[in-house]
Amino acid sequence: MIHLTRRYHFSASHRLHSAALSADANVRVYGKCDNPYGHGHNYVLHVTVAGEVDASTGMVLDLALLDRVVEEEVLEPFGHTYLNLDVEVFTRVVPTTENVCIEIFRLLRARLERERIAAARLQKILLEETSSNYFEYEG
Amino acid sequence: MIHLTRRYHFSASHRLHSAALSADANVRVYGKCDNPYGHGHNYVLHVTVAGEVDASTGMVLDLALLDRVVEEEVLEPFGHTYLNLDVEVFTRVVPTTENVCIEIFRLLRARLERERIAAARLQKILLEETSSNYFEYEG
Amino acid sequence: MIHLTRRYHFSASHRLHSAALSADANVRVYGKCDNPYGHGHNYVLHVTVAGEVDASTGMVLDLALLDRVVEEEVLEPFGHTYLNLDVEVFTRVVPTTENVCIEIFRLLRARLERERIAAARLQKILLEETSSNYFEYEG
Amino acid sequence: MIHLTRRYHFSASHRLHSAALSADANVRVYGKCDNPYGHGHNYVLHVTVAGEVDASTGMVLDLALLDRVVEEEVLEPFGHTYLNLDVEVFTRVVPTTENVCIEIFRLLRARLERERIAAARLQKILLEETSSNYFEYEG
Amino acid sequence: MIHLTRRYHFSASHRLHSAALSADANVRVYGKCDNPYGHGHNYVLHVTVAGEVDASTGMVLDLALLDRVVEEEVLEPFGHTYLNLDVEVFTRVVPTTENVCIEIFRLLRARLERERIAAARLQKILLEETSSNYFEYEG
Amino acid sequence: MIHLTRRYHFSASHRLHSAALSADANVRVYGKCDNPYGHGHNYVLHVTVAGEVDASTGMVLDLALLDRVVEEEVLEPFGHTYLNLDVEVFTRVVPTTENVCIEIFRLLRARLERERIAAARLQKILLEETSSNYFEYEG
Repeated sequence: MIHLTRRYHFSASHRLHSAALSADANVRVYGKCDNPYGHGHNYVLHVTVAGEVDASTGMVLDLALLDRVVEEEVLEPFGHTYLNLDVEVFTRVVPTTENVCIEIFRLLRARLERERIAAARLQKILLEETSSNYFEYEG
Repeated sequence: MIHLTRRYHFSASHRLHSAALSADANVRVYGKCDNPYGHGHNYVLHVTVAGEVDASTGMVLDLALLDRVVEEEVLEPFGHTYLNLDVEVFTRVVPTTENVCIEIFRLLRARLERERIAAARLQKILLEETSSNYFEYEG
Repeated sequence: MIHLTRRYHFSASHRLHSAALSADANVRVYGKCDNPYGHGHNYVLHVTVAGEVDASTGMVLDLALLDRVVEEEVLEPFGHTYLNLDVEVFTRVVPTTENVCIEIFRLLRARLERERIAAARLQKILLEETSSNYFEYEG
Repeated sequence: MIHLTRRYHFSASHRLHSAALSADANVRVYGKCDNPYGHGHNYVLHVTVAGEVDASTGMVLDLALLDRVVEEEVLEPFGHTYLNLDVEVFTRVVPTTENVCIEIFRLLRARLERERIAAARLQKILLEETSSNYFEYEG
Repeated sequence: MIHLTRRYHFSASHRLHSAALSADANVRVYGKCDNPYGHGHNYVLHVTVAGEVDASTGMVLDLALLDRVVEEEVLEPFGHTYLNLDVEVFTRVVPTTENVCIEIFRLLRARLERERIAAARLQKILLEETSSNYFEYEG
Repeated sequence: MIHLTRRYHFSASHRLHSAALSADANVRVYGKCDNPYGHGHNYVLHVTVAGEVDASTGMVLDLALLDRVVEEEVLEPFGHTYLNLDVEVFTRVVPTTENVCIEIFRLLRARLERERIAAARLQKILLEETSSNYFEYEG
């Protein structure tokens, strides 16, 4: 069993504001991240896949396939957007990096299962929000 | 003469859209950066100051002063904002990283002159937009 | 369950010299790191916390709280010091990066338990000593 | 138990081409990586060792010993080579980064066991191929 | 006048061996870099363009154009190759990073002039060979 | 004319305290950097040499020679020391990074002239003190 991790980049903006909280509580919890028009980040996404090394190719996974899946599921729909308004799930769920990380895991796991990549499976998503912060989710 | 460079970070969002261009031209020139609700970046700002080394302190400049100036002129007003709506000048000027870079140079030069820091002067602003792009301006 | 990691920086100096070893053994074990007046590093500290995402805030933990705890327990007492003389525990214990890493874990776990942060717990400390070396401790 | 990771660098070239596949399949699987004369990378190798902290030295492992082992087993034989022709095992096994990673793990585990480093054992090899890709293997 | 720098990556291999030198001199000058089958690097290419900011677009240059030019002139012909055999000029000129840097400058300047990008001109090429080395050329 | 830059690393400690200033002024100017036992950094040193590319070797300079010079003049005497007590010049001059940068320039220029490296000359020293600060000196 070997782990392969591939890094991707996308830029997006978000506002942290929860419909479950009062205006005051939103400011107290999120501070400047609750500013009304949002702000943004260069997100760095690490996708980790676990699998056996195929004896004939010496590879865990076809990287071109992984790149296509991540492009279609994440980079295209999330990149250069305002997550709160442009990505449907985040009109209902606060797009904290925790929630973005979990949503990416959910999207990639579902798609990779549909593609039936027998030898490999999604192990972990790591999402960097800034050079000071990153989040990891394993399902 | 020695050059001192100090790095700062701020996160903001912007939309590239020019009032001087038609809707079609905006899409042609800016692509996805013209998306209606904007997107964002982790900007890395390098401020370079040139000066003589003071014989008694061995320093070019009081770093605490520089930090305060950059905090008040750039990090506080630009950080966690949507530049197009939250920063007055960018309601009129397209907030391309070129223009943000020039505006930061203008703000810091004016302030550093007001503070009368005799031995040092602003030499250059370098602004990283993503890990693929950076801009430099010397006035 | 999601993991949040936050990076912090502090600069300090240390000397590697063990009272349990002879002068010759100290030189043999530590080499130039046993130089009598010490040397220093820019330490990079990664603090990893594990927890559930709170349904109303979308967050694992209040980052402002974590920042305050790390500032008070580590950055303030360790930063800009000579660890061997300025930090009490390292007058008795050799401040190898292994031991500094374990001590930081001990301090943060105790403090986070006192603060009763119900939903999250300290998972791991990773401490970079140089660009060639890092240490990880999970208690 | 603490983990120590040390980073090393070597530059080498490789061609991805499998004797088990037809010419067409090689192009389909490996794309430009099947180019007849190969291409190269700056590999970054992370060696992770797990062990107890020695009470008298405050260290997990003698780093000078680890450096010598990695130099002799990996950096000297792999560095500045064309892996497919200069390293015997890769005349038979496709030198994908997966296989290079596994081979380095095998070489280091065998050597560290021969050196009888009682308190520490090889935990993981992480091998970066480019800034977009890395592989991890734990045996 | 503002400077825009954009980073690109390509992986290639080379052998340092000069037809103007004896076999002994080649070994003395190039050491392991003269190994008969070559070795490789992940090159990082920084392309710096200087120009005025266009008043209507707020940009120095159309980045999509620059990306296309660099792709066609450098990344496609140099990427995933053995420079000594796959790139015609390096069958005659030793592909030291100095010479690769100068050749890239020559290719990009000629092409950018043919494209008649009025407002901007190529200012500098910076080419990183490893994390320890980089070269800069301004024509 | 091409510029070659090579990166080196060394770890040292220093205390910022000027004999030309009162105790109060030392605290006011240097803050925690005046702590009595010092603190330390991982310094990153960039040495830039300018020269013509030699037609027969394709190189500006023999890197092995440059490495030996920097090792003997800087890395060996400064590495793993407390600059204020272990390096003679800094018993008299405050070892701010400005002054360390200028001293390294002076040492390398003198040595490179003695070595009579005809085709290349020292152009610039860049010294990183932390990930937030760097200094450049050209003589």
